[in-house]
Amino acid sequence: MVYYLGTQRLIELTTTVSLEYILLGIIQSMEEDFLNWQHFSLVPRHATFGEHGVIELMVVNNQKDYAFKYVNGHPNNTQQQLLSVTGFGVLSQMENGYPTFISEMTLLTAMRTAATSALAAKYLAPNTNTMALIGTGAQSEFQAHAFRALLGIDTLFIYDLDHQAMEKFIHNLEPQGFKIHPVNGIEAAIAHAPIITTCTTHQGSKGLIEPQFLKPGQHYNAIGGDSPKKIELVASALDKADIFVEFYDQSAIEGEIKHCLQHPSITELWQVIQKKRPGRIHEQQITIFDSVGFALEDYSTLRYIYQLAKTHDCLDHLDLIPDPIDDPKNLYQLLHPA
Amino acid sequence: MVYYLGTQRLIELTTTVSLEYILLGIIQSMEEDFLNWQHFSLVPRHATFGEHGVIELMVVNNQKDYAFKYVNGHPNNTQQQLLSVTGFGVLSQMENGYPTFISEMTLLTAMRTAATSALAAKYLAPNTNTMALIGTGAQSEFQAHAFRALLGIDTLFIYDLDHQAMEKFIHNLEPQGFKIHPVNGIEAAIAHAPIITTCTTHQGSKGLIEPQFLKPGQHYNAIGGDSPKKIELVASALDKADIFVEFYDQSAIEGEIKHCLQHPSITELWQVIQKKRPGRIHEQQITIFDSVGFALEDYSTLRYIYQLAKTHDCLDHLDLIPDPIDDPKNLYQLLHPA
Repeated sequence: MVYYLGTQRLIELTTTVSLEYILLGIIQSMEEDFLNWQHFSLVPRHATFGEHGVIELMVVNNQKDYAFKYVNGHPNNTQQQLLSVTGFGVLSQMENGYPTFISEMTLLTAMRTAATSALAAKYLAPNTNTMALIGTGAQSEFQAHAFRALLGIDTLFIYDLDHQAMEKFIHNLEPQGFKIHPVNGIEAAIAHAPIITTCTTHQGSKGLIEPQFLKPGQHYNAIGGDSPKKIELVASALDKADIFVEFYDQSAIEGEIKHCLQHPSITELWQVIQKKRPGRIHEQQITIFDSVGFALEDYSTLRYIYQLAKTHDCLDHLDLIPDPIDDPKNLYQLLHPA
Repeated sequence: MVYYLGTQRLIELTTTVSLEYILLGIIQSMEEDFLNWQHFSLVPRHATFGEHGVIELMVVNNQKDYAFKYVNGHPNNTQQQLLSVTGFGVLSQMENGYPTFISEMTLLTAMRTAATSALAAKYLAPNTNTMALIGTGAQSEFQAHAFRALLGIDTLFIYDLDHQAMEKFIHNLEPQGFKIHPVNGIEAAIAHAPIITTCTTHQGSKGLIEPQFLKPGQHYNAIGGDSPKKIELVASALDKADIFVEFYDQSAIEGEIKHCLQHPSITELWQVIQKKRPGRIHEQQITIFDSVGFALEDYSTLRYIYQLAKTHDCLDHLDLIPDPIDDPKNLYQLLHPA
């Protein structure tokens, strides 16, 4: 049998232990895996592009575990009352190839993306209780919770083209104790905050964040520019900053850096976490975390949530494979039991 | 919600309509897709090799559908009472990226492999009611059923190194009306049969089938040599035959042909089905179908079984993704319903 965690059970689990508890667990799991970066086989994701979007398989393994996530990205889905991103993930054992755990990863992808952002900010961002959020779509509340859980940020300047999305954000997070200030433009939001998270669905290669918006000492957490056709920062804005990525080979295709591969300061985050390269080194430095999402983060998330759900008895069973089996050479017997 | 077909429900469905009915349905679905070969994006599988085996993701899509199969190959699993091959598959829609159907594919892989073999034999094999089966492991009974369902073959000469596996085969298939003759060696089995199916787990690159075993007019269905380290036919045996493969790029790595890429007669099966290249052209011709398994065959199988299971009300539901959702920009609301 294969263990299964569906959306409903994950929601129950979140209610039991709290979203921020889970986010901190994912961050910790991720930090451990980034410390073991060299023990994983890392490959760019397998992407299938269609007219309306992309379907990706993100695979990673070490000697013991294998993991993959199925995830789609269809920006126009929201016009048909569908999510633009859905996903699910699988853990299996390298030793025998048996899948052991299958999980919803629509909610978990939102959690792991926020966890990654907060983990990067721990190493790269200035100390503050204030963040600007540009884009208040499906990902935004998770970002806010992860930054509060890990770094104590509780004051948010927010901006979105879509006013209803801003109202939704306020409606969701004011009851959770956040101090929220809606503003009427990107520049106004950025002006108030030492940390800026951009999680927009902005289409196009021009970018939203102009170079003159950037202020000394700021940390940018850019997570919306995650495909070959999307960027959030105008290319010349990157010149002013030190850039940090998850996995260079993938970010070079999908991330903000795709327009400035000659940039003199691009560092992979694991190098900072392992203290092989510096993170934030002075107060005036502008840092950019150019995040596109990476398979190892999904593995860290699956590994953590599997154990947590087991502990809280939140796992179901699926007969996705015939296990156990009496005689492995007698698969046919399943159809004609003796 | 995502539709789910687990092992137990597939067994029920097989009992309802019969294994041979399903095999014929898969063959027909596959023949349709081979006739539309040019409309699919075909890529070699994504393989992750470990110390004990391989885990593969096999992906295929056309403009409308996307499919992948997770499958492992761990030859020594049987020593621990585990299957050497397990799998599951997923269908989704290119238009919005939503997964629609997830299914067990351990039994289905055995069925689709047998269906592919029978489909190839329809175009390549001589008319006969007799087949030799070398190797009577987990795959063998499915081969026998597919050849009977499509071509009327009911007389089998069988050989396996493992006598218990031969007894198991007889025990399973004699009650199903097959005439079965166990023999005490590969050459003896081959001597009696116009069609020879090799489905062994033979390890190593030397091969089991010697060139002097081959007789004019025979058709070889070689399905056990399916990884870079395994072959079933001694390389010089291939010289005597016309060879047919599923997808050259993949067979060149995994199939029998990997040791004779300069062979003058290697044809892809779809070319024969589409009448672009000849199949069997004279009575003395020796043909070899060098089958390694290909993603399109899994798609054909998933597509067919999904419809069949729907018709017979054999599908369950899984909350693998949050669907439906009230407001796609408000993923967070799932955690804090209004």
